[in-house]
Amino acid sequence: MELHADERIDQLQSAGVRIIQSPSVFAFSLDAVLLADFAVAGAKSRVIDLAAGNGAVGLFVAGRTGADVTMVELQPRLADMARRSVELNEMADHVRVLNIDLADTWQHAAKDSFDVVTCNPPYFKVREGDVQNPNEALALARHELTTNFDTVARISAGLLKTGGKAFFVHRPDRLPELLSTLVAHDLAPKRIRFVHPKAGREANMVLIEARRSGKPDGVRILSPLVVYDTNGAYTAEVAALIHG
Amino acid sequence: MELHADERIDQLQSAGVRIIQSPSVFAFSLDAVLLADFAVAGAKSRVIDLAAGNGAVGLFVAGRTGADVTMVELQPRLADMARRSVELNEMADHVRVLNIDLADTWQHAAKDSFDVVTCNPPYFKVREGDVQNPNEALALARHELTTNFDTVARISAGLLKTGGKAFFVHRPDRLPELLSTLVAHDLAPKRIRFVHPKAGREANMVLIEARRSGKPDGVRILSPLVVYDTNGAYTAEVAALIHG
Repeated sequence: MELHADERIDQLQSAGVRIIQSPSVFAFSLDAVLLADFAVAGAKSRVIDLAAGNGAVGLFVAGRTGADVTMVELQPRLADMARRSVELNEMADHVRVLNIDLADTWQHAAKDSFDVVTCNPPYFKVREGDVQNPNEALALARHELTTNFDTVARISAGLLKTGGKAFFVHRPDRLPELLSTLVAHDLAPKRIRFVHPKAGREANMVLIEARRSGKPDGVRILSPLVVYDTNGAYTAEVAALIHG
Repeated sequence: MELHADERIDQLQSAGVRIIQSPSVFAFSLDAVLLADFAVAGAKSRVIDLAAGNGAVGLFVAGRTGADVTMVELQPRLADMARRSVELNEMADHVRVLNIDLADTWQHAAKDSFDVVTCNPPYFKVREGDVQNPNEALALARHELTTNFDTVARISAGLLKTGGKAFFVHRPDRLPELLSTLVAHDLAPKRIRFVHPKAGREANMVLIEARRSGKPDGVRILSPLVVYDTNGAYTAEVAALIHG
């Protein structure tokens, strides 16, 4: 396996997966681990991961479930890292990477054909005068420069079978907009889990499951996920997600 | 103080308030205590409580803060209980009860004049064939028979000054609709707290603060409130709200 300058191979023990990372362009974070765990999929699921980055979410889901996974990533460098990680894990028979704009996914993958969509999208809106990360690769991953949540929801809904499920991780400060955008695209929110850095602190992430053409109402707010204990160590639940 | 058949006087120690209750028509529950605590008000606030029932939320807020409180209740029997509780607590100089349909509130209280709206509305939608409580007073308090959340949000927004705050307690299974309804009526959700019956269980109540003409985005998800500990006793936080 060829590694380029600045790249390293990390392992997520719980998923039995190794992944090529580069701090200068992209390294997966806890968000990806939590989303991959939150997503409900099985060995027979057809899964598509949008805004795949270096492939962390898709690789974790594939490693845990054996599902067929398609990854969609716009940035050539990240798509290439994801492809090499697929090879590294010998998953080429059931995992593939599309180096395309996610807005064009319907032209490369059949509509109404997926059981599961996962997406860890750019979190931050772009506002006039905002200072973005001068590193273009990181800026694209964090800010809505090349896509936005409305596009993510619209494309996700079109890819899913009726009753198929979409799983997102996002920022809770955008919750009203996230939910109304999902509803506008016929994705009914069904399960929500807030992630709090510590007990007693406000949430800094939200996990959302939505069902295509599901009934409105009936959303469930799961018990919160707390990341660190009072000593600053991972809680048992998070430690298990990382270390297995 | 005249008590009618079936009535009793209960006390909320933490608010220093006594309240006339009747199990056959209405007795306040934890929802009212949590809402009154969640609402931010001070001695100089002008507060209006919609769907006031027997006046629990308004009395608790008035008792805790000394604020000027107007209560709005449609059912004559409940409005009468609330009025007698106001007398019982010697609050008639700063607390009053309007026995009107909340939809008509603008005709009895000045628009754009309140700092705070509180509302513990009927939680359940009315659907064809639903079985409701045969006790009409309880059915009206629990089901959207005489009002609904869209009306509550519209009337609330009209009563508030710009920047004024509305506080609601509701069911989390309706969260997407609640948030989109607030936004549609120019009430920007700002703080949300989920209430879980026990640690590890799904939320069964949600507290929402919204600001009239506030900026969208920027909602904060507070640390969750857990009602009972593993032994079935109130947690310290809830015990303090009840017992002081």
